[in-house]
Amino acid sequence: MASTAIDSIIFRDIFSTPAMRRVFSDETRIQRYLDIEVALARAQARLGIIPREAAEEIARHAHVEELDLAKLKARTETIGYPVLPVVEQLVARCGHRLGEWAHWGATTQDITDTAAVLQVREALALIDDDLQAIAESLVGLASRYRDTPMAGRSNLQQAVPITFGFKMAVLLASIDRHRRRLQELRPRVLVAEFGGAVGTLASLGTRGLEVQAALCEELGLAQPEIAWHTARDGFAEVACFLGLVTGTLGKLATDVKLLMQTEVGEVFEPFAPGRGSSSTMPQKRNPIACNYILACTSVVRQQVAALLEAMVEDHERATGPWEIEWIALPEIFLLAAGALSQARKLLAGLQVDEKRMRANLDLTGGLISSEAVMMGLAPHLGRQHAHDLVYDLCQKSSQTGTPLLDLLAENPEISRHVDRSALAKLIDPANYLGLAAEMVDRLLARRSNME
Amino acid sequence: MASTAIDSIIFRDIFSTPAMRRVFSDETRIQRYLDIEVALARAQARLGIIPREAAEEIARHAHVEELDLAKLKARTETIGYPVLPVVEQLVARCGHRLGEWAHWGATTQDITDTAAVLQVREALALIDDDLQAIAESLVGLASRYRDTPMAGRSNLQQAVPITFGFKMAVLLASIDRHRRRLQELRPRVLVAEFGGAVGTLASLGTRGLEVQAALCEELGLAQPEIAWHTARDGFAEVACFLGLVTGTLGKLATDVKLLMQTEVGEVFEPFAPGRGSSSTMPQKRNPIACNYILACTSVVRQQVAALLEAMVEDHERATGPWEIEWIALPEIFLLAAGALSQARKLLAGLQVDEKRMRANLDLTGGLISSEAVMMGLAPHLGRQHAHDLVYDLCQKSSQTGTPLLDLLAENPEISRHVDRSALAKLIDPANYLGLAAEMVDRLLARRSNME
Amino acid sequence: MASTAIDSIIFRDIFSTPAMRRVFSDETRIQRYLDIEVALARAQARLGIIPREAAEEIARHAHVEELDLAKLKARTETIGYPVLPVVEQLVARCGHRLGEWAHWGATTQDITDTAAVLQVREALALIDDDLQAIAESLVGLASRYRDTPMAGRSNLQQAVPITFGFKMAVLLASIDRHRRRLQELRPRVLVAEFGGAVGTLASLGTRGLEVQAALCEELGLAQPEIAWHTARDGFAEVACFLGLVTGTLGKLATDVKLLMQTEVGEVFEPFAPGRGSSSTMPQKRNPIACNYILACTSVVRQQVAALLEAMVEDHERATGPWEIEWIALPEIFLLAAGALSQARKLLAGLQVDEKRMRANLDLTGGLISSEAVMMGLAPHLGRQHAHDLVYDLCQKSSQTGTPLLDLLAENPEISRHVDRSALAKLIDPANYLGLAAEMVDRLLARRSNME
Amino acid sequence: MASTAIDSIIFRDIFSTPAMRRVFSDETRIQRYLDIEVALARAQARLGIIPREAAEEIARHAHVEELDLAKLKARTETIGYPVLPVVEQLVARCGHRLGEWAHWGATTQDITDTAAVLQVREALALIDDDLQAIAESLVGLASRYRDTPMAGRSNLQQAVPITFGFKMAVLLASIDRHRRRLQELRPRVLVAEFGGAVGTLASLGTRGLEVQAALCEELGLAQPEIAWHTARDGFAEVACFLGLVTGTLGKLATDVKLLMQTEVGEVFEPFAPGRGSSSTMPQKRNPIACNYILACTSVVRQQVAALLEAMVEDHERATGPWEIEWIALPEIFLLAAGALSQARKLLAGLQVDEKRMRANLDLTGGLISSEAVMMGLAPHLGRQHAHDLVYDLCQKSSQTGTPLLDLLAENPEISRHVDRSALAKLIDPANYLGLAAEMVDRLLARRSNME
Repeated sequence: MASTAIDSIIFRDIFSTPAMRRVFSDETRIQRYLDIEVALARAQARLGIIPREAAEEIARHAHVEELDLAKLKARTETIGYPVLPVVEQLVARCGHRLGEWAHWGATTQDITDTAAVLQVREALALIDDDLQAIAESLVGLASRYRDTPMAGRSNLQQAVPITFGFKMAVLLASIDRHRRRLQELRPRVLVAEFGGAVGTLASLGTRGLEVQAALCEELGLAQPEIAWHTARDGFAEVACFLGLVTGTLGKLATDVKLLMQTEVGEVFEPFAPGRGSSSTMPQKRNPIACNYILACTSVVRQQVAALLEAMVEDHERATGPWEIEWIALPEIFLLAAGALSQARKLLAGLQVDEKRMRANLDLTGGLISSEAVMMGLAPHLGRQHAHDLVYDLCQKSSQTGTPLLDLLAENPEISRHVDRSALAKLIDPANYLGLAAEMVDRLLARRSNME
Repeated sequence: MASTAIDSIIFRDIFSTPAMRRVFSDETRIQRYLDIEVALARAQARLGIIPREAAEEIARHAHVEELDLAKLKARTETIGYPVLPVVEQLVARCGHRLGEWAHWGATTQDITDTAAVLQVREALALIDDDLQAIAESLVGLASRYRDTPMAGRSNLQQAVPITFGFKMAVLLASIDRHRRRLQELRPRVLVAEFGGAVGTLASLGTRGLEVQAALCEELGLAQPEIAWHTARDGFAEVACFLGLVTGTLGKLATDVKLLMQTEVGEVFEPFAPGRGSSSTMPQKRNPIACNYILACTSVVRQQVAALLEAMVEDHERATGPWEIEWIALPEIFLLAAGALSQARKLLAGLQVDEKRMRANLDLTGGLISSEAVMMGLAPHLGRQHAHDLVYDLCQKSSQTGTPLLDLLAENPEISRHVDRSALAKLIDPANYLGLAAEMVDRLLARRSNME
Repeated sequence: MASTAIDSIIFRDIFSTPAMRRVFSDETRIQRYLDIEVALARAQARLGIIPREAAEEIARHAHVEELDLAKLKARTETIGYPVLPVVEQLVARCGHRLGEWAHWGATTQDITDTAAVLQVREALALIDDDLQAIAESLVGLASRYRDTPMAGRSNLQQAVPITFGFKMAVLLASIDRHRRRLQELRPRVLVAEFGGAVGTLASLGTRGLEVQAALCEELGLAQPEIAWHTARDGFAEVACFLGLVTGTLGKLATDVKLLMQTEVGEVFEPFAPGRGSSSTMPQKRNPIACNYILACTSVVRQQVAALLEAMVEDHERATGPWEIEWIALPEIFLLAAGALSQARKLLAGLQVDEKRMRANLDLTGGLISSEAVMMGLAPHLGRQHAHDLVYDLCQKSSQTGTPLLDLLAENPEISRHVDRSALAKLIDPANYLGLAAEMVDRLLARRSNME
Repeated sequence: MASTAIDSIIFRDIFSTPAMRRVFSDETRIQRYLDIEVALARAQARLGIIPREAAEEIARHAHVEELDLAKLKARTETIGYPVLPVVEQLVARCGHRLGEWAHWGATTQDITDTAAVLQVREALALIDDDLQAIAESLVGLASRYRDTPMAGRSNLQQAVPITFGFKMAVLLASIDRHRRRLQELRPRVLVAEFGGAVGTLASLGTRGLEVQAALCEELGLAQPEIAWHTARDGFAEVACFLGLVTGTLGKLATDVKLLMQTEVGEVFEPFAPGRGSSSTMPQKRNPIACNYILACTSVVRQQVAALLEAMVEDHERATGPWEIEWIALPEIFLLAAGALSQARKLLAGLQVDEKRMRANLDLTGGLISSEAVMMGLAPHLGRQHAHDLVYDLCQKSSQTGTPLLDLLAENPEISRHVDRSALAKLIDPANYLGLAAEMVDRLLARRSNME
């Protein structure tokens, strides 16, 4: 059985997803090796470098199901790398010694790296799909709650009101930027590796670049500018991207778990019977998805540093740093997928308690609107004097518990100019939302223009 | 005196540079605060929101030299943030109470974040300048040593020959990619922050976005899509970028320090009298610049993780994570500048010992060319048989120390088809360089097309 | 001026402390180099290896004030290390060529490492002092609030009551463990380095170990088992220790910032006029110290990883990893000192609002005590039936807002056995504190036994 | 199939070990939950709190084989934690409703944490076993090669000779320190968790501490000073310990991979047919084990940072940070076990080429002994003059390639005092080994005294 949380039969669908696990499974990786050998054979057959029948025979047997995995494991442990053992078995299965044309001119790392690129391509498609779904949920929430007032919080203190739609729109802008980043990095990363032992394609004579181009075409990958066996900025950039994406998810999870607090209670994870509940403490509603998002995010962030270290490679084929990628590249995708999947479900079913938002806004008895009141009195009393007066009354309200509105209305200097009902209007947080709604509209409009 | 290596009066120009330290100095940061207050006042005067004379008076006094820094320190410690204390002093220096129009509608973080963006803009320009200079050096080295054979190394073992120009071209491709990354991220990062207490611009009534646009114009920054007080993917992306750049420099430094080994001696840091030398061990030539590059790279990588953590912010203005940026954002730039500056000087004066490269190629008595020999014999002996025969002779050469060429020439099966002079040609590593030179040309050509 | 937050003239006493900055200042470091040269000269004079007058003359001039620091900087940049340049100047200041006896048999790294150990010794004393002060504050808080009920929280949900003293005692236990760790690691770290070029003390002939022992005695450091030029587990262990200590401080800061929330308001940072306040939002009370503690903690954690990487050194004297320590070792202490200092002041003046704690306990109308009620009814109704009944009433209370006590008292099944006043007693959270107080006593008793 | 490298059917025994995977397997973890439930029931039966038959019935069914794992997975995904679902199934399997006495007074985290402690206990025993075996190999190597001269290297430059035994002894001292660290941390970590919902043991009335003590006795774990649900310094300390251990292994692997270079060739990984070899490049001998050790070490280091972050927990039961441990704690052990296992095998079969060591010492034609020559001439020529003379001859030798011995012997000033055979003796690196051998003896003697 599995020993990591990611592969655990209990936790696997909490910390990752079936789709992402499939991309990085042993089977897929080995199958990608075989796919590349097939693509290479086809490209070389097309160019007349190997016999057409060889390419066909290789393709016929290039199925992971045909391999003896126990033997593959044993050989990999001896040699240190799995590609040669895979090729050995492939060769052995081909008839008429046609297998000998397999892996023509390639080096182990050509196959390993290109397979990783193919996996990254599939994995990024999954990530993008999640980002899109999350963006759609956020668009929905931003629109629906465009005008729903709630406390804006700074330093965990109620500061000035916002709307819940505005809060969601801020997140949405981050997600949109991530999608642009993804678009930009793809051409740098979805590039095949094919250079032979040290990148010079020496064993293919003068036709190396021709073969390289044909192989890339077969695989739908870009042709490399030059060998990147020890230039790992592509994979490291992908890691950074996942660090950025999960960073935003961590922010989302932080907000939701804070809003779910017993003392706040404004927003909740989707309800499912038994979800996040306690058998003995019926008052509890645990932010389960948030927990997982945050944990995945923390580990992803450290895997970014690991994958940046993997860039510090030696000479033409590295001694140690490369193997960091073997561990960390699958894992960073697997955990990012876990975080995305949890966030996606979280947002799709997010429960919003508008009444409690309003109640919390009133918690300070109008203090949250002191800025608004000052601004309303300034034309009558002068800005500085209005500020000093309101500030003193706020302090008094804080200390005595008397509602600020009462203190304002009782003050003769104030009541001379503004009556209680006008004061009540000023002090209503729902009237001090600034451009929250306009800002939501502006973002959504810009988005639809872009599409 | 200073206590960090970066500000140390001894080490400051080793681990960073004067130009980058200037960007992140106390003076510059405070001056940027003042610059933004001036820009805001001008923008608001232009829009008729504050009096024109106020903007002029504010601009007249917005100089860091006018501030009492001891007082600023004391007030910052009390309040927790330096912006308000700066504004207080600015207001106090303005005559006719015109200072009261300063900071109109802004919040502390608007100023702090926008100042950081201005610093990042200056800092990225320095980084780009270094990248350009490094790229130019690499172009020079790649061209000059396009055809200089040396051992390609895999797993720290001599593998197959390359040219030194090819090695430099691989690095160059990474640097070019970094420059493209820089171009792409700039529009996402060089964006002003101006949203008021929680981002809604409530205190500016209906004119908030107008003021925001005018402020951005004054500063030459893009207007934000929406507030990003707690959406820190921009700065985190910059950190990732610096992690990627230094990763490549770490790879360069690793190669150079390995090539400088007593037992290898192919490439050296620029010579300066006394540089990296020992008074008692005249045989030593220490890779000093490499050491510093590697150390900076290691710390930068960890600061990336710290700045990714800074993304996990709460609500509209964060409680803790933001302050991570105060520590880590300057430091990651300062250390990256140190690494870049060391790498730039290193490459500008790199010493290459072509003779030693050649001598090392001959170290294995032709074994490095075994692949080439096999290929040369295959048409005569059949590929598999040629392989087996050569492999056996290689083993024998390894064990007995007899040069491979002698063993090949003595072998009757071989000498029947290929004579000693032809074998000598086959076994010469300089004749098995593959497409190294073509690949250099291809990259350089693509680059000049791009410009 | 400074460019790092740690050395910033504005932020230096926020992110670090004057005492710790003094330990890692340029002056102290250079003075420690000189101190060690004096100790070495004295030790060697004592053993008759160098003339007594030489030791005296060296001691006479071994003052950082006598050095030309600009020259020192320039020479350090050339050579790569500052020790030789310091020795050069020291030698030059000594009369009668007696300076030539300085640095006898030592290598640069012997001096650098031993100086670092002396700095670490001073720094750990400061850390220990802070830990002691924090422990004392926690003892005070645990005793004073031994019986003060508050909500225990799990998953940010009110769970079951605790006392505030219990909460403080849990922290105290961690701090005590840290102090034990510190005691244990000291003998492993406070060890001199003195081995010459590669650790064999070759240049001192047969008397190397004798000199080493005498030098250690002079410095009050342990004698090394063997050279540790590239065995850096000592410094890395210190880094880990600081990571653990700040981890606990981060936990403290997290709790305090959460308890300071507008909606919770149970505990506050010490009040100082203007501290953490906002000029326009009088209702705010920002958790300033918590912010700084959390930010320092985050960066310290990554410096731990950097210093663990510094362990991966090559051969007898390393090429790159060592320089990581130059950057990260001072910084990790400086930031840890900042976090400790903030935490120390925070705890010394922590404000506790017992009434609000009580009010929050009542927020769920008794739901927090449902477990207690069940247990109280179990003898009468059977455990399972009691559970089901109470659970249903809790749900009803949650949904309707009717206080749980009313629902319990109205229920005929229940009221048959237990009357309203007994129910009120059961439902009072203050009566369901478990062994919180006993646990506080137990910990405090064990502590005083240990002293 | 698995998707992580650690659980991969191909790579699992490369990056980890069967024994360590067993410790952290799903089965073991679930079985530990059950074991603790049994221990708790037994302890409570002993104290008369639950019926003896209940304890017996619980023990009878507490086997992982009896559980429905698919159901367990589904329930865990709903609730968020696996303990309650395990208890549900256990309860259901017990007859006569005796299962209801299971889990009496415990909270989910009590079981989860204590199970983790039991796993850590087993895992640390495996680690200790590896450390012991490694220490034994190092003792063997240090003794056997006590007097084998080789180049000591500083900055990757040949510096002054050492012996290979000395090199091994330096490593041995680190390993010994790690074992002492392990001894010291065990009592802090092998501590049960049992505190109920928030640590106060409220649901057990007055007998909580009695039950706690009895449970600890059953499990052979120490009793906690107080609840540590959110005081995670114990696990974080274990992580740091593994960071330190692998740091030393990374140093070992670095040295071995450098010594295996084609141009150095002094030390080799154990030979096995096909191991680290290339089918086409017979001259290669790849440092496979070193690669894996280094990769594991890099990822372990970042998991340390992740586990330090897991300390920053909120309140009495954390919201997110705890789940970091679920991912990172197993993984850090699994990867550390991989590194240890590779290192253990590496050292057990290390191949040492004493001839090549000697040949490399002679590579600089005596320059490596210049310090020794100076010292030998000083009595005759004066120290300073001897230094200048030798230094000039060394430079000349370097530039012209004339062996230093020839230059020395030809120099009339020198030959007047010291003849060629005496010079040859001085210049022989084997005569300048300092106290290398004595230092080996000293360390080994101290070790045997300790046992």
